[in-house]
Amino acid sequence: MAERTVFFVSDQTGVTVETLGHSLLTQFDKVEFNLITVPFVDSLGKAEQVTERINRTASQSGLRPIVFTSFVQDEVRAPLLSCNGLVLDFFEAFLTKIEKELKSQSSHTLGKAHGMQDTTSYNSRIDAMNFAMDADDGRTTQQYDRADVIMTGVSRSGKTPTCVYMALQYGIFAANYPLTEDNLEVDQLPDTLVPFREKLYGLTISPERLRQIRLGRWSVGRYASAEQVNLELRAAEMLFKRHNIPYIDTTHCSIEEIASTILNEMGVERHLLL
Amino acid sequence: MAERTVFFVSDQTGVTVETLGHSLLTQFDKVEFNLITVPFVDSLGKAEQVTERINRTASQSGLRPIVFTSFVQDEVRAPLLSCNGLVLDFFEAFLTKIEKELKSQSSHTLGKAHGMQDTTSYNSRIDAMNFAMDADDGRTTQQYDRADVIMTGVSRSGKTPTCVYMALQYGIFAANYPLTEDNLEVDQLPDTLVPFREKLYGLTISPERLRQIRLGRWSVGRYASAEQVNLELRAAEMLFKRHNIPYIDTTHCSIEEIASTILNEMGVERHLLL
Repeated sequence: MAERTVFFVSDQTGVTVETLGHSLLTQFDKVEFNLITVPFVDSLGKAEQVTERINRTASQSGLRPIVFTSFVQDEVRAPLLSCNGLVLDFFEAFLTKIEKELKSQSSHTLGKAHGMQDTTSYNSRIDAMNFAMDADDGRTTQQYDRADVIMTGVSRSGKTPTCVYMALQYGIFAANYPLTEDNLEVDQLPDTLVPFREKLYGLTISPERLRQIRLGRWSVGRYASAEQVNLELRAAEMLFKRHNIPYIDTTHCSIEEIASTILNEMGVERHLLL
Repeated sequence: MAERTVFFVSDQTGVTVETLGHSLLTQFDKVEFNLITVPFVDSLGKAEQVTERINRTASQSGLRPIVFTSFVQDEVRAPLLSCNGLVLDFFEAFLTKIEKELKSQSSHTLGKAHGMQDTTSYNSRIDAMNFAMDADDGRTTQQYDRADVIMTGVSRSGKTPTCVYMALQYGIFAANYPLTEDNLEVDQLPDTLVPFREKLYGLTISPERLRQIRLGRWSVGRYASAEQVNLELRAAEMLFKRHNIPYIDTTHCSIEEIASTILNEMGVERHLLL
């Protein structure tokens, strides 16, 4: 099937419109898409350039591109409205309805989403990020009283990406503590973790997937052997069960799914800090 | 003004609906919002529970909540349609138009966005994340030939969060190399960076903001002194200019803005890997 070109056009970073478009396009698995993001289209001149590019693509491919737009400034969007593509504008679709409901005009100002209007929330995002980096892989455990959640599990079960994602997305203070062979052999919760049992959440994964990940990282040695991987995972799951630590199998989960599940089950509030 | 409650409801992680709703709400700066995300509403029973919660909020506050939804499964959304709130559904608003344009039915399957359907793109995201962590703060420089971009700048100018964001969001291989006093004194590009000049992007920041950030981290010593901060920043900017390294002032930029600007200017393609 011919590839369909999709443009994400914004007068800001384009992050919102990419997210929207991506979420919709994943519902069409029989179509091949060629995705192009054009951010910072904040002048009439730039809007005309993108319009020409869209029209050129349309005539070259013989297929109208799909054009997702989010323009805070209506006047800049104008040239795009007459382009030879299916234009889907995110703000237009919803803003009027919300204005009516709130009996309040929208401000139509740039840099609100994914900008740095709110220094407090921006700072707390960076603080959370520093916390995740400092507390990665059990590096510093002194600050665990500040943690919203402490993830634990064997090496390469998905702890680090999940912690960093929670920090960047929600400003959540997430630490992670690796379960090493020493911990697992004694079948006891590491002393460091005992006072923070309520904050613990376990990560497990299938032995096959874990081997695959570990092999990709260090291809030799016991670390990625079937025996070792089985042993560690069995011991970790026993530890979670014995100490009533909730846990999730990350084998078929994306980072977003792991993070959403953990926050949901632990009742940790999440607020986007974009 | 009375606070307006906003629900983000999804049969999946809720990440898309949060991002989109957030982007719209930031345009209403005169209204206070109370934000509640309810993910994984994947059964009629759960949908009825949320509907009751929305109705309770409406009657208690005397204000209809705004309800952003993204339901892949239409039948699960049904109860919400009769709730006492302004329901704005992202899929409904755009899917039909796209179906018509593509002459293709959407699949209405769960776990497409923010799921793990595509193992290849998921793996490349984790690879990029590992790369960012391994290559953070100049730790390993051997793999710079694999980097899409190498950020450089003084300590706390915003390198690490930007690298990690690029990895998580787009699977981009971003390394960062700190400019230390030793590098800056000699006013030469560090030897390690010379072969990779084309991949370099500089980060700078205002002395006031840098002091503020450094004070928040280590409150004592020369590191956060006005003199030291001024000296480092002046030397770093001179280095960027002398070696024709493009750079961005991150003082008033969010992580998304820094990342979007760099990728845009360097012509690095970005594809969401959610």
